[in-house]
Amino acid sequence: MCRWLAYSGQEIFLEELLFKPQHSLVEQSQHAVEAKVATNGDGFGVGWYGQREEPGLYRETMPAWNDCNLQHLASQIRSSHFFAHVRASTGTATSRANCHPFSYKHWMGMHNGQVGGYEQFRRPLEAFITDEHYTKRMGTTDSEALFYMLFNFGLEENPVNAIRKMVETVETLQAERNITEPFRCTMAITDGDRLYCLRHSSDRFAPSLYWRYKDGDLVVVSEPLTDDQEGWNKVPASHVLVAHNSNVKEIVSLKV
Amino acid sequence: MCRWLAYSGQEIFLEELLFKPQHSLVEQSQHAVEAKVATNGDGFGVGWYGQREEPGLYRETMPAWNDCNLQHLASQIRSSHFFAHVRASTGTATSRANCHPFSYKHWMGMHNGQVGGYEQFRRPLEAFITDEHYTKRMGTTDSEALFYMLFNFGLEENPVNAIRKMVETVETLQAERNITEPFRCTMAITDGDRLYCLRHSSDRFAPSLYWRYKDGDLVVVSEPLTDDQEGWNKVPASHVLVAHNSNVKEIVSLKV
Amino acid sequence: MCRWLAYSGQEIFLEELLFKPQHSLVEQSQHAVEAKVATNGDGFGVGWYGQREEPGLYRETMPAWNDCNLQHLASQIRSSHFFAHVRASTGTATSRANCHPFSYKHWMGMHNGQVGGYEQFRRPLEAFITDEHYTKRMGTTDSEALFYMLFNFGLEENPVNAIRKMVETVETLQAERNITEPFRCTMAITDGDRLYCLRHSSDRFAPSLYWRYKDGDLVVVSEPLTDDQEGWNKVPASHVLVAHNSNVKEIVSLKV
Amino acid sequence: MCRWLAYSGQEIFLEELLFKPQHSLVEQSQHAVEAKVATNGDGFGVGWYGQREEPGLYRETMPAWNDCNLQHLASQIRSSHFFAHVRASTGTATSRANCHPFSYKHWMGMHNGQVGGYEQFRRPLEAFITDEHYTKRMGTTDSEALFYMLFNFGLEENPVNAIRKMVETVETLQAERNITEPFRCTMAITDGDRLYCLRHSSDRFAPSLYWRYKDGDLVVVSEPLTDDQEGWNKVPASHVLVAHNSNVKEIVSLKV
Repeated sequence: MCRWLAYSGQEIFLEELLFKPQHSLVEQSQHAVEAKVATNGDGFGVGWYGQREEPGLYRETMPAWNDCNLQHLASQIRSSHFFAHVRASTGTATSRANCHPFSYKHWMGMHNGQVGGYEQFRRPLEAFITDEHYTKRMGTTDSEALFYMLFNFGLEENPVNAIRKMVETVETLQAERNITEPFRCTMAITDGDRLYCLRHSSDRFAPSLYWRYKDGDLVVVSEPLTDDQEGWNKVPASHVLVAHNSNVKEIVSLKV
Repeated sequence: MCRWLAYSGQEIFLEELLFKPQHSLVEQSQHAVEAKVATNGDGFGVGWYGQREEPGLYRETMPAWNDCNLQHLASQIRSSHFFAHVRASTGTATSRANCHPFSYKHWMGMHNGQVGGYEQFRRPLEAFITDEHYTKRMGTTDSEALFYMLFNFGLEENPVNAIRKMVETVETLQAERNITEPFRCTMAITDGDRLYCLRHSSDRFAPSLYWRYKDGDLVVVSEPLTDDQEGWNKVPASHVLVAHNSNVKEIVSLKV
Repeated sequence: MCRWLAYSGQEIFLEELLFKPQHSLVEQSQHAVEAKVATNGDGFGVGWYGQREEPGLYRETMPAWNDCNLQHLASQIRSSHFFAHVRASTGTATSRANCHPFSYKHWMGMHNGQVGGYEQFRRPLEAFITDEHYTKRMGTTDSEALFYMLFNFGLEENPVNAIRKMVETVETLQAERNITEPFRCTMAITDGDRLYCLRHSSDRFAPSLYWRYKDGDLVVVSEPLTDDQEGWNKVPASHVLVAHNSNVKEIVSLKV
Repeated sequence: MCRWLAYSGQEIFLEELLFKPQHSLVEQSQHAVEAKVATNGDGFGVGWYGQREEPGLYRETMPAWNDCNLQHLASQIRSSHFFAHVRASTGTATSRANCHPFSYKHWMGMHNGQVGGYEQFRRPLEAFITDEHYTKRMGTTDSEALFYMLFNFGLEENPVNAIRKMVETVETLQAERNITEPFRCTMAITDGDRLYCLRHSSDRFAPSLYWRYKDGDLVVVSEPLTDDQEGWNKVPASHVLVAHNSNVKEIVSLKV
């Protein structure tokens, strides 16, 4: 389980959301309150759109709370569209390549959750990644595999549908093996303009996911950044929040 | 604040105390219960006496709980006398040289606590380190400075007295500057045979420290390794536990 | 390209071969003379048989020459059978999981070389790894894939034959794709007693590999550990050196 | 010994100088040609002026050539005034705090060279650092001590004079102890606008230092970035190059 944050809005320093709020993402790396574990100290990452079409990435294996480079970068880098993620490993190694977000060309994705029984269908699941994308894979996490699967499912044409197929595929692979451990997942995907945030679980316990639109800025985040809950809306389970830049366009059910 | 463990007894694999107990030291790195913070994820270290007169050291900046090397080493290295430490930084950088234990020749030390107002008297305190030891200093923590001061105070001749002088010196430096933040400290020092474990605070809140002697083995540790408290004795505040190998010889008051 | 060393003989401290010789393996990490690159600074690893049936591993992403932990461990750990490896990445990420040696149960392997056109047949090559072994794979290198393929090819029954099939398989995969970049490779495999060291290339430029038997101790190494070449024998190209503990039993041609 | 680069001119992506030239600074991290050692793999750092009065810093213990974060940052961060440094340790630990550049408020400095006999006068030299600056010191290198000494010597009022006093002080400390090992040094200091680059040695072997002014851009660098030497000027030994933004104002002798 992990905690993450997606931002779209006016250009701000990353530290405005990573460090400054009461319950900032870096604070959540030590004191998450809505996750199974309080500590998300198995690496972290930020990905931001800035001077290039492709996003910049900074991923590190240390805990976010004690990385001096992150403090420097977050106080220097401005962006109007960025992701940040603090990781709690469910077993795979702590390496930079296993830290989120992942990027491919101008796309970027990150994930939180667990894929029940993943070790039993790691290879069949990877078979849904095209050869082109398979060679770009840098790490070994289920998260990165899910990200690359989306391209095969039409991410570039119909992102919501690609996400839907990804969920169906995982659950079919689980069902074929009579796996009863759940598939719980939040995921954020962007092409730099459009943002897609999934909240889902195969059981009743979808990981928490909130969004807030305020003064032209959109934040989607695992846990509210403020102690009071005002202005924070839950993304319903098994729904995808769709935004164009900072504007929430719709919140679509996974069911058709 | 940090958590630590000192062992003396029959030769065992390090993992017997680092990983296997319910509330093992590695478990304490994520879920400390008697410390100001639950997470001790700013590096860790082990130091053990084995094949050489000087101890071996393995110190790393990652959290202990996700270091695969530590798992390997703890399952391969056997020792009858070792230290282990998980760190929660109070401000200094996370580097290997700032991780405990520290060693000098056949001596080894580790520390937990806070030196109130340290930044105000860092240099006067360092002036109590001899030139010979000053050049051996690798890091920048207060902990390492306290360790090297001990040699100037006669550690090799009378360790309890050296510890006493160290405490007096810190508190004098604080008093001279009207510093009211406390000096809270637990510390373990060994020459490979003899073990000295200090528990002290200038106020009423000395950090927790326990010891257990069982079947010929001595463990001194920040928090009991088992959920039930049976067999665990508190070291009284402002006292030094003195052991020769696994035998507790005395528990001496700092006051003369 | 990388440099490696395999030892079998009397129990010695690892530092006897890693640090002390004129042209020790750690020296080779900065100043290799028979490799395409002088610097092998993209991580390193040691694996040793000691107190357990399974080997211990210490792998790190820093260069071997400046890792203070390695110095400590090499001066404390004794073994009669160990591997060591310094890495020069040919493209995959620098992570611990991508450092050699790799281990599976009581088996251990390490590799040096290049698999020409690997990215074009990464997935078909991985298809030769059984499901059981596939889930144990921790990293993303070609080296680790080659190691796990061996089990499918009968490593546990007939290691030389498994190595032969591995070479044939890679070269078949290359030929099917008209890949002209060579497959150059040295590889060491052991079960803790028996040692198999391959030197091979699909062209005339097999990476260097030497062995020396002296006073009951066997060393197989990418480059001689001493400046003079006395006592060092080249492993012929496309041959496998087979030893039982420190005794060289045969040097077998890959051709049947 | 290390290699470094200082840039002032039009705003460019850091990668334009760090990665793209034939003999870029990252190339110099593996293949320096005018240094005592070819490999500068003991950490690196970049410091740049951008969105804030204080510079941003990114310092890492891995070799520059295999740090994927550096590639990302250098392709995203633009600056008109920046420093970069690749480190070859002369003994002190590889930690981020020991990597250059160092910063204090809006000042930044970096260093290459050796302070002969430093261990014999580490503390007397540190006595030249004011208390205010001493508490800001994060690492343990001679380089960082030299940087902080400058403030005591009037860096903010007369930088050239402060540099002169620093050199005199080191050489006096050496002379008092009859140290014959040389003080060899290049150093770059900036407040974000003005740039001061020292090249000096107490013997005849000052480390190499070059500057090039071309099309409004100034580069000062340990080794030319291009294979041909055209346009590259040597900074004379025992001189300080003084620039205001990209304009070289004077090249001043240390002798008065």
